[in-house]
Order: sequence, then C-alpha cells, then structure tokens
Amino acid sequence: MQIAILLYDRFTTLDAVGPYETLSRLPGAETVFVAERTGTYRNDTGSLGLVADAALADVTAPDILVVPGGPGQLAHMEDGALHAWIRAVDARTTWTTSVCTGSLILAAAGLLKGRRATSHWLALDQLPALGAEPTGERVVFDGKYVTAAGVSSGIDMGLALAGRIAGDTVAQAIQLGIEYDPQPPYDAGSPDKAPAEITAMMRENSRHMLTGEK
Amino acid sequence: MQIAILLYDRFTTLDAVGPYETLSRLPGAETVFVAERTGTYRNDTGSLGLVADAALADVTAPDILVVPGGPGQLAHMEDGALHAWIRAVDARTTWTTSVCTGSLILAAAGLLKGRRATSHWLALDQLPALGAEPTGERVVFDGKYVTAAGVSSGIDMGLALAGRIAGDTVAQAIQLGIEYDPQPPYDAGSPDKAPAEITAMMRENSRHMLTGEK
Repeated sequence: MQIAILLYDRFTTLDAVGPYETLSRLPGAETVFVAERTGTYRNDTGSLGLVADAALADVTAPDILVVPGGPGQLAHMEDGALHAWIRAVDARTTWTTSVCTGSLILAAAGLLKGRRATSHWLALDQLPALGAEPTGERVVFDGKYVTAAGVSSGIDMGLALAGRIAGDTVAQAIQLGIEYDPQPPYDAGSPDKAPAEITAMMRENSRHMLTGEK
Repeated sequence: MQIAILLYDRFTTLDAVGPYETLSRLPGAETVFVAERTGTYRNDTGSLGLVADAALADVTAPDILVVPGGPGQLAHMEDGALHAWIRAVDARTTWTTSVCTGSLILAAAGLLKGRRATSHWLALDQLPALGAEPTGERVVFDGKYVTAAGVSSGIDMGLALAGRIAGDTVAQAIQLGIEYDPQPPYDAGSPDKAPAEITAMMRENSRHMLTGEK
C-alpha cells in the first residue's frame, strides 16, 4: 500500500506530518513524499525543510494521496502539471485526502465537485466557489474523498482512515503508539470555542494571507 | 527568542513537529533545526528526511531547547559531543524540553537528576536509573525542565509552554491557528484507556526495540 504525501513550497508541516505519523504505521505501508521535483521544500515559516524523495512522474499509482495545506496552497490553484498529476493518480487511488487548505487544491483540480468537504476554518467559505459543499465537521468522508479541517486535524483523519483500512484494533494500536491522548491546556481549538476576540482577530489578520492580497 | 530543535537519525517526526508547530508561532520566535552536522536526517521509518540547517557549534545560546525522541535515541545515551552540547546550551536556556524518549537523552546527559519527568509510556520505567522521577502526567514542568509523554504530547507541551512564555491569549490564538480541537475516533491514547490486549501487545512488541535487544 503506497501512501503519497505531496510537498510544495510553504506547506504547513503538521498538515503533512499528522497523516504521515498515523498512516505510515499501517501494516504494509510504504510512504513517499512527492513534489514537482525531488529535493528540499521549505515550509510556511521557512525554518524547516522536508525532503521530497520522488518527483511527480515517479509516483503513478499511490493507494492513498495526501495533500497538505499551508500558505503555499495559493500558488497551486491554477490548472497545470500538478493538477494533471493529482487527477491522474486520483483515478487510481483508494483514498484521496487533504488536510487544511489542501482541500482547496483538490477542489481546484476538479475532484470535489458536489462533494461534502472541509478545510481550515478560515478557508471554509472558499469551497463553494470551487464546487464543494463545506461542512463544520473535523474530518469529512465523502466516498473515497477524505478532507480534514485545519493543521492538527490530520491526526484525527489519519486515525479514522487507519480504522477504515485496517480495522479498529490496528488504529487503536497506532493511537497508543503515538500516545494520542490529547490534553490541550486550553479549549480554544475551534472558532466556536475560542474567545470571540481571538477568533475575530485571526479572521482579520488572515484575510490578506488567505486571499493573496497584500 | 531562539528555539533549537535537535535532529538525529531515526527521530520520530511528530516528536519534533508538535513543539515546532506551536512554539515557532510565538511572536519573535526564530526556530532552528540543529544536529551534529548540517544536512538531512532520516526519521524512524526512513521514509522522511528533515533538514538540519545548523550544526551544534552554530547554536550556542538558544532560549528553548527541544529534544525529540524516537528509536534513534538509543544511539545517544553515552556521554560525548552531543551531551556536552546539551549541557552547554542548557546552562543558558530559559526552557529545556523533550518529547517522548528525548527525556532519556536529557536524563543521560545529567540534566534531570532528582527531577520529575515523563517519557513515552513504554519508556517511563527507564527514567529512575537515569536519576529522574517518572510521573504519569502528559506534560511535566519541573523548574525550567519540561518533558512530554509520547509523540503527540509535544503539541500539548508546546501550547502549555507558549502560555507560560507569551500568555494565554497568544497560546489560544496558536491553538486556534492550528485548529487543535482534537476529536480522536478512539479513546485509546494511553495504556490505561486502550484495550488491555493492545497495551499488552505493544509492551511485548516494543521490548526489544526500547532496549536495543535483537
């Protein structure tokens, strides 16, 4: 079972690593980080580089595709080689997945038309223009398409998907292996739970970031 | 504020990325991945490489040190250049931290003597021989030493530390930014919560891994 995780400049690290740390522990999993070219891709802050061991042409039939999000997503919304590759491998995947604004790339590539999907809470309202129907769930299954909300939600998605693929016992063993017994010191992880002024501040601050406005 | 995250061969990715994704979002944070030599370090499965942009000698006075765990920890339990560096930077840090079996490295370097600490649940019983007192908490503060339990606990540690450093509002904004509103599909993230047979199986399977026995 091959799991392909896409990298591109300015991806958000945990978007990729959450599904990675869960799915790569499935029995028989072979995980590959793939990008337009092999080599190092810097993340959203620029302070971390992850290595893509494969180029798009090297990965033709992954069983699972994972598309992370991050500010770099903005550069991948136009049709072209990346979208063509996404569509080509999607034709053969068992599961096509995304975390955070990765769903905007999947949707822009035409894969989420008429489907229920999610994204980072700050980007949810961009889904309808791309043909998808946003939901407020943290992990959304619609057929073989699985989209997760912001950044850390990829861990929950990975575990849910592990359960579908390999059964509850394997998924629970993975959860125990990564000791995923979350105890956040605050209950501020969604726009409905965070103090209203923090949610409002982040909406304001992120407006130019998400739309590409300066 | 410089945050130094240690890399070494066969580290566990989320151990490093959990604290990274939270602490690197602190105002004024400058995060650097550091290792014995600059270049790419492969993780525990070998399927992902992270880049160390700095060598030990390049990082002399980080404000925060983060030591991740992973099976590669076993190769760093003897005194030598790495322990000497850890002790030298620890003399100047505001916070010295670890995730998972990273605490065994800190303890082996002599930094946790008489201190309360934690580690991956499968490694907790190794702490006393290294002079530390294991606790069942997910994140343990003892003075400036902060240790977190297995793998995913570094996210909780990062948020707790962000709160201590920059206040609750900033930490909550970071939590909302990474949409950390965990909804694990199972409640199996600790040895007490997982089905007993899964916990027992993992104890058995991991025995040789944690001790280095073949």
